[in-house]
Amino acid sequence: MKRIDWNALDEQERSEALARPAQSRAAALREGVSGIIAAVRARGDAALRELSAKYDGCALNALDVAEDEFAAAEASLDPVLKTAIREAAARIEAFHRAAAPQPVSVDTAPGVRVERILRPITRVGLYVPAGSAPLPSTALMLGVPARIAGCREVVLCSPARSDGRCDPAVLYAARLTGVHKVFKLGGAQAIAAMAYGTASVPKCDKLFGPGNAWVTEAKLQVSSEPDGAAIDMPAGPSEVLVIADVAANPAFVAADLLSQAEHGPDSQVILLSDSVALLDRVEREVARQCAELPRAEIARLALAQSRLIKVASLPQAVEVSNRYAPEHLIVQVVAPRVLLDGIESAGSVFLGAWTPESVGDYCSGSNHVLPTYGYARSYSGVSVASYQKQITVQELSAGGLRGIGPCTATLAAAEQLEAHRRAVTLRLAELESMT
Amino acid sequence: MKRIDWNALDEQERSEALARPAQSRAAALREGVSGIIAAVRARGDAALRELSAKYDGCALNALDVAEDEFAAAEASLDPVLKTAIREAAARIEAFHRAAAPQPVSVDTAPGVRVERILRPITRVGLYVPAGSAPLPSTALMLGVPARIAGCREVVLCSPARSDGRCDPAVLYAARLTGVHKVFKLGGAQAIAAMAYGTASVPKCDKLFGPGNAWVTEAKLQVSSEPDGAAIDMPAGPSEVLVIADVAANPAFVAADLLSQAEHGPDSQVILLSDSVALLDRVEREVARQCAELPRAEIARLALAQSRLIKVASLPQAVEVSNRYAPEHLIVQVVAPRVLLDGIESAGSVFLGAWTPESVGDYCSGSNHVLPTYGYARSYSGVSVASYQKQITVQELSAGGLRGIGPCTATLAAAEQLEAHRRAVTLRLAELESMT
Repeated sequence: MKRIDWNALDEQERSEALARPAQSRAAALREGVSGIIAAVRARGDAALRELSAKYDGCALNALDVAEDEFAAAEASLDPVLKTAIREAAARIEAFHRAAAPQPVSVDTAPGVRVERILRPITRVGLYVPAGSAPLPSTALMLGVPARIAGCREVVLCSPARSDGRCDPAVLYAARLTGVHKVFKLGGAQAIAAMAYGTASVPKCDKLFGPGNAWVTEAKLQVSSEPDGAAIDMPAGPSEVLVIADVAANPAFVAADLLSQAEHGPDSQVILLSDSVALLDRVEREVARQCAELPRAEIARLALAQSRLIKVASLPQAVEVSNRYAPEHLIVQVVAPRVLLDGIESAGSVFLGAWTPESVGDYCSGSNHVLPTYGYARSYSGVSVASYQKQITVQELSAGGLRGIGPCTATLAAAEQLEAHRRAVTLRLAELESMT
Repeated sequence: MKRIDWNALDEQERSEALARPAQSRAAALREGVSGIIAAVRARGDAALRELSAKYDGCALNALDVAEDEFAAAEASLDPVLKTAIREAAARIEAFHRAAAPQPVSVDTAPGVRVERILRPITRVGLYVPAGSAPLPSTALMLGVPARIAGCREVVLCSPARSDGRCDPAVLYAARLTGVHKVFKLGGAQAIAAMAYGTASVPKCDKLFGPGNAWVTEAKLQVSSEPDGAAIDMPAGPSEVLVIADVAANPAFVAADLLSQAEHGPDSQVILLSDSVALLDRVEREVARQCAELPRAEIARLALAQSRLIKVASLPQAVEVSNRYAPEHLIVQVVAPRVLLDGIESAGSVFLGAWTPESVGDYCSGSNHVLPTYGYARSYSGVSVASYQKQITVQELSAGGLRGIGPCTATLAAAEQLEAHRRAVTLRLAELESMT
């Protein structure tokens, strides 16, 4: 782990200290993905079967999960796990329901009613990766807000295992959240299928969920074409930034850093502290705990890129964090709420010693699909609003138009849009003639 | 204007009846724009000056608008127009403030507090086109919500006229909404400058506003690069769909269709009615009113592509409208609210005879930067939320972690993320040892 003294760095070195691993959209990746998208658009299900055989190593007949596979999945799961999935879903639902947008109605002038109404995005596509391990929690994070929003058709794609079956916990979570159909598809081909539709897979209006570089590139490509699909957000490798003071428990801080580092060799892990003693203690703890982990090798690769940064003060730590804009921000200091006001850019924030980042990954109720790679400067995590359209509605009475019509006509004239002006003055003349 | 009977069409013909003009991202456009972006990234202000000379025909010294130009703009404007701009800004502010997201705090379990806090996007860039006429209204629509959100730096680009000055009404509106800096830049070069920054133009986190094909392509390109900028939404030509019944005033309907048609030859205009008599009357009125317009030539080109569609019933009209997903939807029927529940996809809706679309363009209070080209299926218009990040925050007490820790540990184990599990169990063990 690299030790850095923030106040010994010049501007250029500070930028380098917070640099993320390069995410170039390499030409080979772009072309590989656009080839897959073109194949799926041209040959539909046949292309999906070929690509699944090639990349997931499984020969699919039906692309969707049949009822008996759902039933077998549910029967095969440990009841303790099923209970945990249901418990997590209930808390995710409680928070997302409370945070859902509400309709608005306001009279901006007498007789001028302006409203905002909410409508679900009709068809949505969820992507749940299956890397080294299944991710039922991601099925919950994507499926619960889709159900609250009331999307009419919710489709989920997740790659099949080599035996041609989907992970049973993912299936159980998908079914629990009311996902309508699950397809055994992964990678860029899954994104292409949901964006453009095939005989089996319905065309979706918006796509959600994390994924590897191929999935991310495919999401970027389909979202930049008018006949493709919108996406939740761009994505990069997962990351955590921890702010800790001398009073923080170094074993807790180390455990939080490691729970990010185990995600993958390109995961980002940064610790900021105003205490050299704390940095020393955490460094020792990380080495000790890492040795005991089954994924120690992955974690060590991520840690080799990680940084322990000495700052002058906790407010300076917040400044550095805002500049980095982390996906996850853990604040383990004596009075974490004092720092909250200063936090400007982060995906999700974890306050205090008893709030490990893992609770947000699974079951505090917040969403774990969050902006990575600095996108927290301009994007927010997935929420019910991500699955809705906000439509404005206006309704004027005759008196309302009499009131604001002249203002409209003046502005239309200034913009030399005569037909806009006449649409108002013609009505005002009609009102005049009626009285 | 093309007359169509919806119920005489097969599925393919229905798709064609609602097709929009092709928006291919032609290779020449893509390459032209990426060349401009590369030039601005490589040579900054010098490239901006060259490109402004080439495309806007003006030789710029300083790129930004100086204080004396703002003062001269204000002094030169008709007081009636200034009053109209202020009046519009006040109503836009009233609605946008009422519809702004609110913070949320909920206990999802005892001792588990989950919140959503709101933070402005720090630096935002607004684009106000200057085509055949100035658009002060667009400066209001972009600037007012940025100010309500509290963005720290608000930059606006609008191309200079050939005399090297910006339109005075745009400057007055920009200053009124608290825009911090205005640059005399247009086209793809303006988007590149705001996305990547130059010596004069600050790098922005998110870009907003309408524009021509070059601006739209530039927004797509910068938003697909991690070091670029986010954007409000993709864009296409403006469009309106009107649903009218036999009781509608044909002169009003015609005026509304024309106020869209005058925008440009590629504007889309569609009328749906269950009454052949109404379609006949509107067709005659359109011809009569169009002849009187200064932009009659432009409107005629748009009308040549427009469609008058006979449907079986008003609910079927709503179905067709949802399929088209119009930017503007005008409902001129006896009981417009009855149809509102069925409306699923539209940018902004105008109910009843006294609500011309022009009021929404200028001063009802709703935003006129809306999803076009079918994007209303998955995007919403610009609002205060567009200028904010929603950050989730969680804080657990020791008791809170005791409650939800076991659920977290079970799920982490199922996903084979051992460090995630230990970040919880290590704390639970510490709590155990404390009692």
